[in-house]
Amino acid sequence: MVEAGVIGASGYGGGELLRLLIRHPDVNLTAAVSSTYAGKPLAAAFPGMAKRTDLSFTGSLDTNLSLDVVFLAQSNGKAMTQAADFVRMGTRVVDLSADFRFRDPGIYKQWYAADHASPELNAAAVYGLPELNGAAIRGAEVVGNPGCYATASILGLAPLVASGLCAPGSILIDAKSGVSGAGRASFGLDYHYPERNENLSAYKVAGTHRHTPEIEQALSGLGAGDIALSFTPHLIPMTRGIMATCYATVPRTASAADLLGLYRTFYRDAPFVEVVDGLPSTKDTLASNLCAIGLALDSRVSRVTVVSVIDNLIKGAAGQAVQNMNLMFGLDETAGLDGPGVWP
Amino acid sequence: MVEAGVIGASGYGGGELLRLLIRHPDVNLTAAVSSTYAGKPLAAAFPGMAKRTDLSFTGSLDTNLSLDVVFLAQSNGKAMTQAADFVRMGTRVVDLSADFRFRDPGIYKQWYAADHASPELNAAAVYGLPELNGAAIRGAEVVGNPGCYATASILGLAPLVASGLCAPGSILIDAKSGVSGAGRASFGLDYHYPERNENLSAYKVAGTHRHTPEIEQALSGLGAGDIALSFTPHLIPMTRGIMATCYATVPRTASAADLLGLYRTFYRDAPFVEVVDGLPSTKDTLASNLCAIGLALDSRVSRVTVVSVIDNLIKGAAGQAVQNMNLMFGLDETAGLDGPGVWP
Amino acid sequence: MVEAGVIGASGYGGGELLRLLIRHPDVNLTAAVSSTYAGKPLAAAFPGMAKRTDLSFTGSLDTNLSLDVVFLAQSNGKAMTQAADFVRMGTRVVDLSADFRFRDPGIYKQWYAADHASPELNAAAVYGLPELNGAAIRGAEVVGNPGCYATASILGLAPLVASGLCAPGSILIDAKSGVSGAGRASFGLDYHYPERNENLSAYKVAGTHRHTPEIEQALSGLGAGDIALSFTPHLIPMTRGIMATCYATVPRTASAADLLGLYRTFYRDAPFVEVVDGLPSTKDTLASNLCAIGLALDSRVSRVTVVSVIDNLIKGAAGQAVQNMNLMFGLDETAGLDGPGVWP
Amino acid sequence: MVEAGVIGASGYGGGELLRLLIRHPDVNLTAAVSSTYAGKPLAAAFPGMAKRTDLSFTGSLDTNLSLDVVFLAQSNGKAMTQAADFVRMGTRVVDLSADFRFRDPGIYKQWYAADHASPELNAAAVYGLPELNGAAIRGAEVVGNPGCYATASILGLAPLVASGLCAPGSILIDAKSGVSGAGRASFGLDYHYPERNENLSAYKVAGTHRHTPEIEQALSGLGAGDIALSFTPHLIPMTRGIMATCYATVPRTASAADLLGLYRTFYRDAPFVEVVDGLPSTKDTLASNLCAIGLALDSRVSRVTVVSVIDNLIKGAAGQAVQNMNLMFGLDETAGLDGPGVWP
Repeated sequence: MVEAGVIGASGYGGGELLRLLIRHPDVNLTAAVSSTYAGKPLAAAFPGMAKRTDLSFTGSLDTNLSLDVVFLAQSNGKAMTQAADFVRMGTRVVDLSADFRFRDPGIYKQWYAADHASPELNAAAVYGLPELNGAAIRGAEVVGNPGCYATASILGLAPLVASGLCAPGSILIDAKSGVSGAGRASFGLDYHYPERNENLSAYKVAGTHRHTPEIEQALSGLGAGDIALSFTPHLIPMTRGIMATCYATVPRTASAADLLGLYRTFYRDAPFVEVVDGLPSTKDTLASNLCAIGLALDSRVSRVTVVSVIDNLIKGAAGQAVQNMNLMFGLDETAGLDGPGVWP
Repeated sequence: MVEAGVIGASGYGGGELLRLLIRHPDVNLTAAVSSTYAGKPLAAAFPGMAKRTDLSFTGSLDTNLSLDVVFLAQSNGKAMTQAADFVRMGTRVVDLSADFRFRDPGIYKQWYAADHASPELNAAAVYGLPELNGAAIRGAEVVGNPGCYATASILGLAPLVASGLCAPGSILIDAKSGVSGAGRASFGLDYHYPERNENLSAYKVAGTHRHTPEIEQALSGLGAGDIALSFTPHLIPMTRGIMATCYATVPRTASAADLLGLYRTFYRDAPFVEVVDGLPSTKDTLASNLCAIGLALDSRVSRVTVVSVIDNLIKGAAGQAVQNMNLMFGLDETAGLDGPGVWP
Repeated sequence: MVEAGVIGASGYGGGELLRLLIRHPDVNLTAAVSSTYAGKPLAAAFPGMAKRTDLSFTGSLDTNLSLDVVFLAQSNGKAMTQAADFVRMGTRVVDLSADFRFRDPGIYKQWYAADHASPELNAAAVYGLPELNGAAIRGAEVVGNPGCYATASILGLAPLVASGLCAPGSILIDAKSGVSGAGRASFGLDYHYPERNENLSAYKVAGTHRHTPEIEQALSGLGAGDIALSFTPHLIPMTRGIMATCYATVPRTASAADLLGLYRTFYRDAPFVEVVDGLPSTKDTLASNLCAIGLALDSRVSRVTVVSVIDNLIKGAAGQAVQNMNLMFGLDETAGLDGPGVWP
Repeated sequence: MVEAGVIGASGYGGGELLRLLIRHPDVNLTAAVSSTYAGKPLAAAFPGMAKRTDLSFTGSLDTNLSLDVVFLAQSNGKAMTQAADFVRMGTRVVDLSADFRFRDPGIYKQWYAADHASPELNAAAVYGLPELNGAAIRGAEVVGNPGCYATASILGLAPLVASGLCAPGSILIDAKSGVSGAGRASFGLDYHYPERNENLSAYKVAGTHRHTPEIEQALSGLGAGDIALSFTPHLIPMTRGIMATCYATVPRTASAADLLGLYRTFYRDAPFVEVVDGLPSTKDTLASNLCAIGLALDSRVSRVTVVSVIDNLIKGAAGQAVQNMNLMFGLDETAGLDGPGVWP
């Protein structure tokens, strides 16, 4: 059994980690750290855990615990000050913040307004997108778990970019997210129910959202040259789900069948990516670790539209973190993640 | 033209007042006071007012203005310290807070934890439910505009109570409100979109909600004796709308047709109350000043179910305030309120 | 391993059965019958099942299969014509329709407008509410799985009624359900998104909803005499979740602490009922088999308010059916149902 | 007073026409035709019209009526068989279907699978987007009212295209609509509340949606050459509102301030277009005839993002139809449309 703990356990990502780890067949969850709920049962933050666990939150990590892995689910800037101590103690780290996502600390500094506190550890960290970096994740001490928008976008575009088929300057991602992506502690007028319900907003458009460089880094690493793209996030009046509607120009000779074949080949061994006929909807992935992808070709303008959907809190956060842990510890990649999606 | 101003103009009730008064044929809206938005155009708080008005918010009321009426749409406890000055200047007051709703200042103190600052003015104030108190409202200097739950509940039960048909101890109101009833400034984790969406909560049950004594006072004033009742509010994942599902025991001899006739007679001259066949839904009143009422009789247990619905921000707040103003200034009761409901 | 099949597998209840049974540690799911989706993979009806199962729908049950249990999740009136054949073959039946819920076939006929097709089997069938009938369910050949409203209401009132504390004629249930309770095949203008969103309706009020006699039968069986009550269902603009707000008159001497103690004692061994401090919200049970109950006492009018919440498709349908199966086959009552609720 | 009638009056577009025309100061609404609701009061289809009108639906148009204008709000293919008769009788026509939107009947045939039944009338018809075609609309006998997506998209892109600044092949529109855009009669599993709520779908992507040629026709008419673009519609879990997120490549020398100035100049006389600082949200236009537009420039990739929002049933249908009528009859362009948006 893998001994595991979660720090930042009372947010939405942390809660989903708890939910998945409580029932993971190969994991023993022994710590759930939350300053807000210290001393209280998990059900105080997540009422649906009543009767399903005896675990309580603690205000800090019990130093007597010998953890094999720790999940860090806190705001940006904390994990990079904590990870080195964990690694020293032999505890491997899956960080859900942005701290270990960028190979170049200069990009981190540019977008997150802080010097990286652990540049050496960062250099050894692996970007935790299993469909692209599975081998490296297996051996990693520290995994930087991808952002939610980044996961949907990269998975939606990777086969196209890796194939060299699309014009690098033509990529545009119009992404839409449910409101839980903003986090639990972010409450304020912007997310006040009457303001957000029956409302649709774009925000941080024109390359100003922090997932832009993350997507560019991942796609630029696929061997087809450096990618600069447009990324536009939108806030949708629903709780969960992300859709990345991705556009790129392809050669006039490309057919929709070719492209679909390309995607199916690329993901043939991926246990959590389904390339569908038609187009997927976000509900197709609700409460599961699935990424569903569909595409269509507008041959008139030689542009492909790829629709990629995930549950932002599962494949976009906690589920992917568990998938990474499974790889790091030589477990079945789907262990603890075999639950089909919930419908409706 | 009636010269009018609104204080507390950037909340949900205040915004609906502005919207109604801007287009009111007999009103000249000259002041919109909001400390938050002082100096900014109305569209800063209510983007849908762009191009429809040149008015801007002010931080306080311009002392050069000579207002015929002021609408106070602030949190409880403020109006009772301001109203006397307005009355002295000849400005009549419609207060949307709880400050002038209770004939007995002792009840105010018990439920709002404060001595009443203007007991004399309070003694002369009129409870602004036009369907019950129309004549008194016409002559009032100060009108206490009813609470949203109270409006739906009282209108749903008044014919029954006034007729003496229902057993006084048998009244129970199970009420449901959209989230805008909590107000705009109340944002917090409780109303954070992901917590409130797809969720249904009861709150302040068992006679602890402040609209309980307000409903009891109004129904007890109908001549059938003192009423003590059960009132349970619920929060519904929608923005607008209130439903009061009201229950009472009636004599075995009462028929559904009798009761329907009773209601139709009671409201035959009310321009904003529709007694429907069947049962109304909250959407039937969306963005209008309508109260729709339907009922059904369970003769097996001699209990009537009355369903009363309103738009909580219109008939439950701003629309009713304008209706009161219309009466106070001898205008057509429906002036500025003749807009049919929006569908869907 | 228990060999299991589901008939009526492409509706909402059927889909949740599939989802739970696919991962049930002691079950081998071999049949999913749906005429609509015959020959197609489960993901055709439930896209979130992609990559999680190889099972496909069949148009009818393969006669070569030897099932230990079959779940019938069809419209009312079908199971009573099918169950006898299953029982003859040694296949035990959990029926999610109303066909086996009523001891008295006369009540079935009165409310469902049909003679019961299997009165003998019906006489031997057990009403599948494990918290009340656990022992009988263990030995049952045929279990009539309770209705969703009935489950929330009965669990909310059983301790009170069984204790003899409440006045039998005083019981009133104001219930609220998400729209999935209407079923998947029921689509029509009434459930058209623009009509139902931002809308709240009461329906089948005044004792005309078919769950009324079901609740009365269960509560009347608790030894405190025959119960006739008021039941009012409402449709809430959300997908999942039921709340039953239950009211009853109690003796003046009863205290809230007494009542809470009574409930906690009654459910002390129930693995899926949590009696909470305060009041539960429907989201507390989302996607779990939990029933959460809270209460408050209005001593002024000697009336208790009990709030009982469930996920209508889990504890109100598929989860309860699996719980019944667990009991019938001597499995751990929580097997396959140990997933904590999803949040948010 | 303009004598007006509505045919197809019980759908969502028809209902909003009724609502606006009932209160229009210069209109006398004398006919509301609906086969479904013939003989019933308007409130039978739109409960919020109770007490606000005495008009009833008729099954067909009373031949004794002498109408100045008729609004046709039916499914595609009907208006083109009816319009000639109206014109002959001196009744001007505003058609909300697609029948009179295309100058080239060949495009109509290609996209709507039917020969145009009135090619001569079509040749004289005017595309009813007042911000582009105001002068022509004033003199038109028949106006083809634009599609909802088309309105938001064209208004969002017109200044850019007309200025010749954007690369014609670079235009991409990612559009999002509330579900009311599907219409009232379209109910079915796709729009069943539990399937659509908490769900986000793309549909008719890659140039297959019928608003694509409509947008291309309008933008190609702005003098900057023929435009072929990408258009992707999405269905959002909300009732009302459309956002068109528009992208185009601009010269490296263009600044955001230049572009904003260009838009403000273009729309300086448009009473229903507001060019905002920042980015608008759909709720900014709820229940009003406003189109709000904002933009941002990503100078790194020389691409502008323009966000254009409307209420799909008002500026995207009924409100724009009334605006067209105002122009046709020499009324104030804002008559009957001066209501500020509803918030929240």
